[in-house]
Formats: sequence, structure tokens, C-alpha cells
Amino acid sequence: MEWCQVRTNPERRQALIDGAIEVLAREGARGLTFRAVDKEAAVPSGTASNYFANRDDLLTQAGARFYERLQPSPETMAQLTDGPKDRANIVELMKEVVGRIEAFRTGYLALLELRLEATRRPELRAVLTERVRADLEFNVRNHVESGMPGDETSVRLLYLALNWLIVDRLTLPGIFTEEQSIELIEAAVNRLVDDDA
Amino acid sequence: MEWCQVRTNPERRQALIDGAIEVLAREGARGLTFRAVDKEAAVPSGTASNYFANRDDLLTQAGARFYERLQPSPETMAQLTDGPKDRANIVELMKEVVGRIEAFRTGYLALLELRLEATRRPELRAVLTERVRADLEFNVRNHVESGMPGDETSVRLLYLALNWLIVDRLTLPGIFTEEQSIELIEAAVNRLVDDDA
Repeated sequence: MEWCQVRTNPERRQALIDGAIEVLAREGARGLTFRAVDKEAAVPSGTASNYFANRDDLLTQAGARFYERLQPSPETMAQLTDGPKDRANIVELMKEVVGRIEAFRTGYLALLELRLEATRRPELRAVLTERVRADLEFNVRNHVESGMPGDETSVRLLYLALNWLIVDRLTLPGIFTEEQSIELIEAAVNRLVDDDA
Repeated sequence: MEWCQVRTNPERRQALIDGAIEVLAREGARGLTFRAVDKEAAVPSGTASNYFANRDDLLTQAGARFYERLQPSPETMAQLTDGPKDRANIVELMKEVVGRIEAFRTGYLALLELRLEATRRPELRAVLTERVRADLEFNVRNHVESGMPGDETSVRLLYLALNWLIVDRLTLPGIFTEEQSIELIEAAVNRLVDDDA
């Protein structure tokens, strides 16, 4: 049990969680075993079982890690708070966030695996629901406080449209080209954000 | 091989594919074996292997079956072609399609499993890409020809936003209530469809 472990260290824990993300993306949720994670992180067999109470604990921490690794850069946050208060800037911000998520391909695929696994595991579902809700509400609050055009509904509808755009781009890349993807982001912002708001 | 099978029949084939959808939703892509499908469809062990060339063949047919089972009713098609040419009617049509997909919960979850499996299987990816593209283009063409307000981009952006709404509703139902879901559908149509178009 965790309270009696002494030989754990934060770097190794993080390496194991990052390994779990790669395993989830590559093998699916059912492929995620402590043994597979040990192998992925190139640590001795039995290591992961020292760091996580059980498989649910590991799944939950992998979900939290996705959001941790996707934190916007200080530059992006500054562009939101100090940049021009217009739709053109929102387009740039949305392109940046879609690009950032697409660049962490395995992380997003792992999160989709976790969502499907959540339909089978109530505890994981509760934790993920809380995390996704907090992330969405953070974005809503941030946007409204930034003084940018657009209301709460604009943010929620952008969240919906851009998430599925990323699903298409990562799972069936033949659906929308890079150029079409950019056009869809621009159209989504232009239509969902009222410039007079 | 298929050309030398004589004892296959269409009803049983369909029952096996429907069984595969249930197994995919419940166990994930890695849980989909011929043995699991035989069990789900309550047929003698070894039956599925007589009907499908291999696992890829079964996965592909499960994807096609999702679209087959989700065909809009003649009433819905009539509402599109003969109903009022206004946004209020589009809202009703979108509520109907979201409700229809949510009601086939296991089918949609199976399709998400197939999308993730498609990242690992180029052949499945090619078939799914073709199917999703055809479905989207059918909707775009249908909408434009119906004389309803809204353009091609409206249809594509509604496709994006409503798909992720369904993902949230089916995987993390605590994110949006039924009421919020309906408000989001209304707001999506009102903002994405230009009434003067």
C-alpha cells in the first residue's frame, strides 16, 4: 500500500504514467497492464505495482497527466489576457490549442480510450467527469473574464466542434485535410462568436 | 473462403454482426474475438469463423452495420424534404438525429472503438474513412438540395459539434444534462445556420 512504500520517487512515477499513456494509445485500454507499463517505461518488472494501488489508480492518473502535459504555455495565456480582444485573435488561439492537442497524439488517443473504459468503470467515470468539467469551466471563466467577444455558449460550442475535429484528424486523417481543418476552425469561431457581444 | 461456403444465411450473418457490435461496446476492440461473438449471438462455437474471412472483415462489417441500423425513418426524410424551410425545423431534425444515435448507445460506442482500432489497422482505416466521408457528403448534399437555410459549412460544423455532444452524453453523462444538451443543439443550429442564406 502506498503509505508503506519508501523507495518511490516522483520522476519514476511520472515516467510510468507517461508509459501508461503510450500503452493506452497503442494497445487500447485492455492492453494496459502493470507488466506492459513496466516494459514501456523500461523499468524492472514489478515496478508499476509498487507505485499504483491498482489498475484504476493508474488509469485515473493517466487521465490527469493528459491535462498536466497539455497546459498552455505562458505565451498562449498572455495572448488570451493581453492580446487583441477580437475574433481574429480567438481564431489564432483556437488554432494553437488544436495544434497543441494534435501534437500530443498519443495523449489524446489515450484519453479517448479512457472515456470508453469509463463506460465500464464508475469510479474512473466520476474522476474523468470532474476533470473534464473543471477544464471546460476553466475555459469558460477564462474566456468571459478576458473581455474577448463571445459568451459562455460560444466556448462550449467551440469545445464540442473542435474536439470532434481532433477526433477526425487523429483517427481518420483522410476526412479533412490540414487546410480544410484550418478553414473549419475559422468558420467555427466566426459563426459561434458574436463580434458585437 | 466465402465462395465455397454453402451453409451461410443472411439472418445469421446479421445476428453475428449485431453481436459483434455488443461485444465491441462492452469489451472494447481487443475483446472482439470470433469466440466472443459466437457466445453473444448464442450460436455454436465456430460459427463466426464460417461467416467472416478474418477479424478485419468482421470489424469492417460492424462499422457498415452501424450506418445501416441508423438510417433515418421515412418520416424524418420527409420532414427534411417537405417540412418548413426554416431553422426551427433544422433544430427539430438535429434533435431527432442526436436522439436516434443516443438511443443506439452500443452502436455508437462500438464505432468509437472501431475508430481507435483504425489507428492500428490501415485497412479498417481506409474503409471507415470512405464510410464516414460518404455519410457526411450525403448529409451536405441532402441539406443543400432541401432548400433549407445554411450552407455546406453549416452542415460540417453541426456534424462536428453534435458528434462530440454525443460522445460526452454517452461516455461522461455528468457533463451535460438532457436539458443542457437540448440548449446546445438549439444554440448550435441558431449560430451555425445563417437564416438569410
